[in-house]
This record gives sequence, structure tokens and C-alpha cells, in this order.
Amino acid sequence: MNILNIACGAVGAYCSGRLAENGAKVAVTIRSSFEEIKAKGFEITSIAGNFKFMPDEVLTSSKEYKNDADYIFITSKVLPNANTVALLDGVVKENTVIVLIQNGLSIEDKIAKAYPNNEILSCVAYLGINRTTGNKIIHQGGGQLRIGKFGGGPSLAAQKLCDAFNAAKIEVIYTCDIAFERWQKLLWNITFNAISVAGGGLKTSEICDNGLLEDLGRSLMEEIIKVANSVKVALSFDMIEEMITFTRNFPPYKTSMLIDFECKRPLEIEAIVGEVVRLGKANNIPVPHLETIYALLTSLDKLNIKNI
Amino acid sequence: MNILNIACGAVGAYCSGRLAENGAKVAVTIRSSFEEIKAKGFEITSIAGNFKFMPDEVLTSSKEYKNDADYIFITSKVLPNANTVALLDGVVKENTVIVLIQNGLSIEDKIAKAYPNNEILSCVAYLGINRTTGNKIIHQGGGQLRIGKFGGGPSLAAQKLCDAFNAAKIEVIYTCDIAFERWQKLLWNITFNAISVAGGGLKTSEICDNGLLEDLGRSLMEEIIKVANSVKVALSFDMIEEMITFTRNFPPYKTSMLIDFECKRPLEIEAIVGEVVRLGKANNIPVPHLETIYALLTSLDKLNIKNI
Repeated sequence: MNILNIACGAVGAYCSGRLAENGAKVAVTIRSSFEEIKAKGFEITSIAGNFKFMPDEVLTSSKEYKNDADYIFITSKVLPNANTVALLDGVVKENTVIVLIQNGLSIEDKIAKAYPNNEILSCVAYLGINRTTGNKIIHQGGGQLRIGKFGGGPSLAAQKLCDAFNAAKIEVIYTCDIAFERWQKLLWNITFNAISVAGGGLKTSEICDNGLLEDLGRSLMEEIIKVANSVKVALSFDMIEEMITFTRNFPPYKTSMLIDFECKRPLEIEAIVGEVVRLGKANNIPVPHLETIYALLTSLDKLNIKNI
Repeated sequence: MNILNIACGAVGAYCSGRLAENGAKVAVTIRSSFEEIKAKGFEITSIAGNFKFMPDEVLTSSKEYKNDADYIFITSKVLPNANTVALLDGVVKENTVIVLIQNGLSIEDKIAKAYPNNEILSCVAYLGINRTTGNKIIHQGGGQLRIGKFGGGPSLAAQKLCDAFNAAKIEVIYTCDIAFERWQKLLWNITFNAISVAGGGLKTSEICDNGLLEDLGRSLMEEIIKVANSVKVALSFDMIEEMITFTRNFPPYKTSMLIDFECKRPLEIEAIVGEVVRLGKANNIPVPHLETIYALLTSLDKLNIKNI
């Protein structure tokens, strides 16, 4: 199995690395710490067992890739200026399956338009994983992927990939409703990521310990569910208390957006918060709580990046 | 004219100091920099003329005051744990007029209950004034007070005080609707103070330059006006664009809440934001934007104070 992992950060290194352990041939393109990773590979500390991942090729750009990939993983963050389609230039062959392991909504549309004859798999990762410095990755909890075929239906290529992941210590659920999975993850992600940053740098436990913030979380989730329902995604209001309870019982956790903020990296605001605000407005669903925290987050992000 | 100024900070030093320049006998109680102010008085840099204000008495507590005050000014910030009534212990005589030069809503009620036979003047200050360090005060703009009698109606004591202020370079407008004045000031104060802090430390110009934040300002003002109207205060929706335009045309300005935040001082959140959220809820006026920024501000304030 030939894999090209474009923009291989923490999530990419873990997923591709586990497949490489089981025999896949993996090339990666890297955004930062290129020399270090080319020389030493990734060092991954994981609750499922530590390992080292030395990719077969470490590239600065997919243009350098000369092989035919069975699967191209795109694991970049979804930022406003990122052009995912351009990243695929020249490497998508007739049978290449494009796998988006990313957050956000509607991220498949542009790819499908550019490559209408290629199969696209859309993937939501539940991996408590971060890059600390350079080539060091820490995987602290979770370990599940949910994969669906863009456009729905069964898929042999997906089945093969799921089998490979399952054999490589990464549990995968194949779903025929990946939109639901994306929204379900967003429900938690928007709420806790946004409050963790806008509230001044809070772990999940600190959010749940503060009645006003926990109620704000409930209000944000209510709005997200209404927007999801308006686009025919069946999130239910029961999920609110389930997620609150789940989060309360989970060990104190620093959200990925907060880690990005503290590292002064750009935040995935547009893809996860802005998109829901825009969908709400387009569908006449009032989203005042979302719109408030969205406006504040964009300001915080802008100042944070400027201050590098 | 004998004045006791309790909790004399920047606003108090300016107001009392101007009256002292014109012959009033002023005692002050001080929260911080006691020795410095006792030794050197306040040094005030003002667009209306620099001056030094050496109070007749500098006290740590009103209990030390042995005179009979004609007017007691209370110029403390309105913080949740502050007990304004206790500050008045022993110093309110039969003819003492109590003057509240403070922000916030419903701040007169407790005083009126404790001293039902004394006249209470409620005062809103439009003074662009801050304490920088120790005994140094900077007055950069504005210079107007609006004074009204609690309970309404005319007042000889208020007239006398207004005359004294007007003679001392501080313009005063006597109003029979001080509640309207308080809400009008809140309309600006909540909006720009809250966004300046929760948006990451923004001057007014930076708020107006950011479409999302300016729209957030409009949404906050709309909610404040609806709550004001629900308690029979006649703020009008026209004020929104007036205040936006006024603020846009005003030189870049750091709000007092942002200055407090940067100095790691506790913020006046409950008196100016929390109170409107609570009134909204009590009167069934939805205040989702206010409630979001209120929850975030309380968290930011708590972390900020903790980090001293």
C-alpha cells in the first residue's frame, strides 16, 4: 500500500506511522522541522505503545513525489488561505483515493470538483494527539477514526483502508453518514475549543467548573444543533448533556485550539466556527452566542499571530 | 464646603481636587499608595490645566474622619465584594449629602435603605481619566458630570454642588432622570469595555476597524436598549449608530476596563454587564450576546487576578 501523506503533522504522523509499522510505504510532505524529521523521523509517545516513524520519503512538496499513491492523506489544518486542491497538483492518478483527515464542514466539495472521477474518503479523527516540538508527537488518549465515502455508499477502497487501520492499532468505524460524524465532532469541538481560548486559556475541567461557562457551552451547542438540523443533519438536543457529562468525567484536557493558540499558530476558526455561523445566517437560524464568540476569537487569533 | 471623598482614586482625585482648588476643604480615604499621597498629594496632568491636589486630610478609613461633611463622595469601583454602606459607618450626619460618583445600576438602593433621611445624589462622570502609578493622575478628555437626585425632583444641595463644580472647571448638568444617564453611559461602557478586553486588548479604533467586532457592538447595544426599555428607561435604537459614529471619530482610546485588566486590577463586570444580564433574564428579554461576553469576561477577570 502506497501512501502519500500531505501536510503531515501530529495526526498524520500517528495514522501514517501506524500503517507504516504494518508494512505500508509512506511518503510525507512536511510543513515544519523538515531537516529534523528527514534525519530522525517522528518520535511518537503513545498510550497504545511508543514507536518511531521513519517515512520512506520526507518531501517539502507533493510535487517531488514520483510514485503512484494508492491513498493520499490530507492532514493539514483547514485555514482560510490554504488551497487544498493545489496541494494535490500532479499526484492524483486514475486510481488514487483521496482521504481527508481534517476537521470542518464542506471540505470535500472543492476536491470533488477538481477530481470528479476519484474516490474521496472523508475522515473524522478522535485522537488526543499533539506535536510538542520538532519531531516529537504525543498521543494521550482516544484512537478512533470514522471514515465515510463522500457521496455515501459502500467502498472497497475504504474497506481496505479500514482493515489496514484496524490491523495497525487504530480502530476505525466505517459510516454511511460522515456528515453526521463531522457535525457531532464539531458540536464538541466548537464549544470547548472556543471557550477554552476565549475564556483566557482554560482546560476542559475549568470550563465545567464554571457555571456561567458551562451554560455558555450549552447555549453554543443548542445553536449548533439547530443549524445542523436546518441542513438535515440529525444531531439531537440530548447530546448536550451527554457531552457535558462526558467532558466533566474526562481528565482535564487542553483543547487543540488552545494548544495552537499558546504556540501562536493560526487557529482553525473559519472551518469550525465561522462555517456554522454562516450556515446559520443562510438558513435563518439565530446564532447569537456563536456569533459573539466567533467575532472575539477572530480578534484574538489575529492579535496572537501578529505578536509572533 | 466640607467634603469627605471615600475611596479616592482617579475620578475622585480630579473632582475633589478641582473643588479644593476653589476653596473646598477635602478629606480623602485612600486604597493604595497611602504614604506617597499623604506626603506628596496627587499630581494631576489635565487637558484643563495641570494641578497638584494636596487633600486637607489623607485617611486610611472614613472612621478616622472627625469633621462633619457637607458632602460625602463615594468614588470606589463597584465590585461584588465591596460594601459601600459599611464605608459610611459613623460619618453620615443629619445634613450630610451622599454623592455616588460611580458606574453601575441600582447602586443607590442600599445606601437609601441604610440612610433613608439623607439626600442622595447620583452622578455619572464623563471624564477620560486614569491613575497611572502611585499619586499620578492623567485627565485626557471629557470633563462633564451629570448629577441627579435619587428619587428625582429638585435639590438645593445639588444646585450648590453643581455651582461649585461649574466654578471649578468641571461642567455639570443637573438632570431629573439620572437613570437614563446611567443607562446611556452603560450603553457605551458595556459595549466597548467588554469587547476591548474580551477581544484581546483592543483600543476603540481597533474595534471599529473590525467589521465582526463592530457588528458585535451593535448587537450588544440592541440588547442593552431592549433591557433598558423593559425597565422604562427610554434609550432609543438610534443611539447605536450615533455611538458607533462618535467612537469612530474619537481618537483611539483605551477603555478603563482594559486599563484595569492590563494592571491586573479587578474589573467592574457585575455592576455594568452582569446587572444588565440579570435584568434581561428577570424581564424575559433575551440577551445572548451579552450573556456570552459576560461569561467570558468573568473567566478572564478571575484568571487575571489569580495571576498577580
